[in-house]
Amino acid sequence: MSVKHLGKQTVRLSYPPSVAAAACVVGKKEGQGPLREWFDYISEDSYFGEKTWEKAESTMLRQCFALACDKAKVPISTVDCLFAGDLLNQCAGSNFALRDSGRPVFGLYGACSTMAESLSLAALAIDGGFADITAAMTSSHFCSVERQFRFPLEYGGVRTPTAQWTVTGAGAVVLTAEGAGPYITHVTAGKIVDAGITDANNMGAAMAPAAYDTIKTHFEDTGRNPDYYDAIVTGDLGAVGHGIVKELFRKDGIELGPLYIDCGMLIYNTEAQDVHAGGSGCGCSAAVLCGHLLHNMTENRWPRLLFCGTGALMSPTSSQQGESIPGICHAVALEMQRGC
Amino acid sequence: MSVKHLGKQTVRLSYPPSVAAAACVVGKKEGQGPLREWFDYISEDSYFGEKTWEKAESTMLRQCFALACDKAKVPISTVDCLFAGDLLNQCAGSNFALRDSGRPVFGLYGACSTMAESLSLAALAIDGGFADITAAMTSSHFCSVERQFRFPLEYGGVRTPTAQWTVTGAGAVVLTAEGAGPYITHVTAGKIVDAGITDANNMGAAMAPAAYDTIKTHFEDTGRNPDYYDAIVTGDLGAVGHGIVKELFRKDGIELGPLYIDCGMLIYNTEAQDVHAGGSGCGCSAAVLCGHLLHNMTENRWPRLLFCGTGALMSPTSSQQGESIPGICHAVALEMQRGC
Repeated sequence: MSVKHLGKQTVRLSYPPSVAAAACVVGKKEGQGPLREWFDYISEDSYFGEKTWEKAESTMLRQCFALACDKAKVPISTVDCLFAGDLLNQCAGSNFALRDSGRPVFGLYGACSTMAESLSLAALAIDGGFADITAAMTSSHFCSVERQFRFPLEYGGVRTPTAQWTVTGAGAVVLTAEGAGPYITHVTAGKIVDAGITDANNMGAAMAPAAYDTIKTHFEDTGRNPDYYDAIVTGDLGAVGHGIVKELFRKDGIELGPLYIDCGMLIYNTEAQDVHAGGSGCGCSAAVLCGHLLHNMTENRWPRLLFCGTGALMSPTSSQQGESIPGICHAVALEMQRGC
Repeated sequence: MSVKHLGKQTVRLSYPPSVAAAACVVGKKEGQGPLREWFDYISEDSYFGEKTWEKAESTMLRQCFALACDKAKVPISTVDCLFAGDLLNQCAGSNFALRDSGRPVFGLYGACSTMAESLSLAALAIDGGFADITAAMTSSHFCSVERQFRFPLEYGGVRTPTAQWTVTGAGAVVLTAEGAGPYITHVTAGKIVDAGITDANNMGAAMAPAAYDTIKTHFEDTGRNPDYYDAIVTGDLGAVGHGIVKELFRKDGIELGPLYIDCGMLIYNTEAQDVHAGGSGCGCSAAVLCGHLLHNMTENRWPRLLFCGTGALMSPTSSQQGESIPGICHAVALEMQRGC
């Protein structure tokens, strides 16, 4: 067994890469929420100057990546490779965003777990000695996602209480081999977990068992316990899924307590903004990580963070064919101490 | 700069992982083509025992992965992580195929370049010390792809001369840190190249400039020239794209000659099987690599092979919105000599 390999699913990075900079760009509604001060750019225009929502999403992600490179003082041309994906069919959001980047692209599909998946692979690429600078990014746009997965907005469908609101937002992280941190110290790659949920308006419940599985495995593999971290953050389980994860750990005799939070519950003022169970989408965990969470790390309020991207792997076609909704969760440990 | 990093886009693996085994499963039409003897399993039933084409695709890929593990004498439970993707919306083909695998999954979207993309990352995961055993896989199914990207089959649309035929096929490769080869010695990750082609029935032309860019960069980065290889193989450019790549190299004064071949031109008897410009789809390069190409390597007819997966990164929505078709190509050098 390789020395970097811990337990069943976890990798301990031998020389943890550093977050050189991160950027987040969001839409107007997100900019009205409680995390507004941490976003780098809030667009008043949901079209981002484009003529379609899909192009708007690409433009938002392109801006976000450029901003992350600016903040890191890293020209795009020096980034060795990019890891990116999104929710749109054929990942058109990220592919068109990066069309003119001139850098090698590894396209990913991890549904709403993409920020964690891309961050994992971008970190491994550096720690493996394959790259000195990498970038991880993703996006989602309320309008492009609604019409692709649910109904045209004009239809005015009524939302169920368990429904979540897809975040219009993008996040991008630039990683470097050297730097002042936060450092990516461990990656726990998730397996697909299917709890048999078939209600596409209850994604939190569909993803929660995968989040539980990955977080539990992370503790087993590393020998850490929840108290090791200052915050354990899932991507977009919302209030329903967040409650299920707490309950699953409670059955194991583990009380996660207030250190366990969810990006989907943080990004909106849930009641005042009428978002039902909370935010969702690739952009949810991406924008919260790249703003609020990393800020709390660099200001040393949370020197140790476990970031757990959660994704629901169904498609409209699989749901129409009666399939349940499989979930996945990838966990990335970020720490202010490199510890190697 | 890392010692593994060569030139602009290439990685030289320090201790090249070995192909422990590969498997390919195809449909009836592919089984009637010139490569029939190299396929592990040819299904007479295009539904693979399922009720929908999407489920058929998942079942085909699941069978294929299980077969590759059997051939490698590696229980699925011992594979450290899986890299997989496909063409279906939200990569439902591979996600449902791997739902019950119990192994960590990194989901990819590289369109028809996915076999090369997954093979690249699966090799890097081992060489980086993160895994001892990994697997790379992908699939496509003529019927699921036609209705998603073009028309319902019942519509009976007439095909243009430049159109290609989506392969019903899957390929899976199991890689191990130790083994007798073939070895993955270099990876050249591709950037997105857009030549401005807008005709979704001329994918070969859309992807050819990306193939040219990656292959040329591979030679520059490694200092090799085309004669170093016994075969240079693109994924699914078909006759049109294959001709464009040859022409682009000819302008540089390089005559690729008969060592340059394309999986899309190999898999069918183009005229007798009425496939116009040739085969396409993720399953095209996957099934040809995992059968014909790797056989030729292990029988030492082609000890050095450059495998270049090619993908067209448009979506039906991007095409409807007037976008051109960006291409991407990832190249993987496979050699019978480990050379380290």
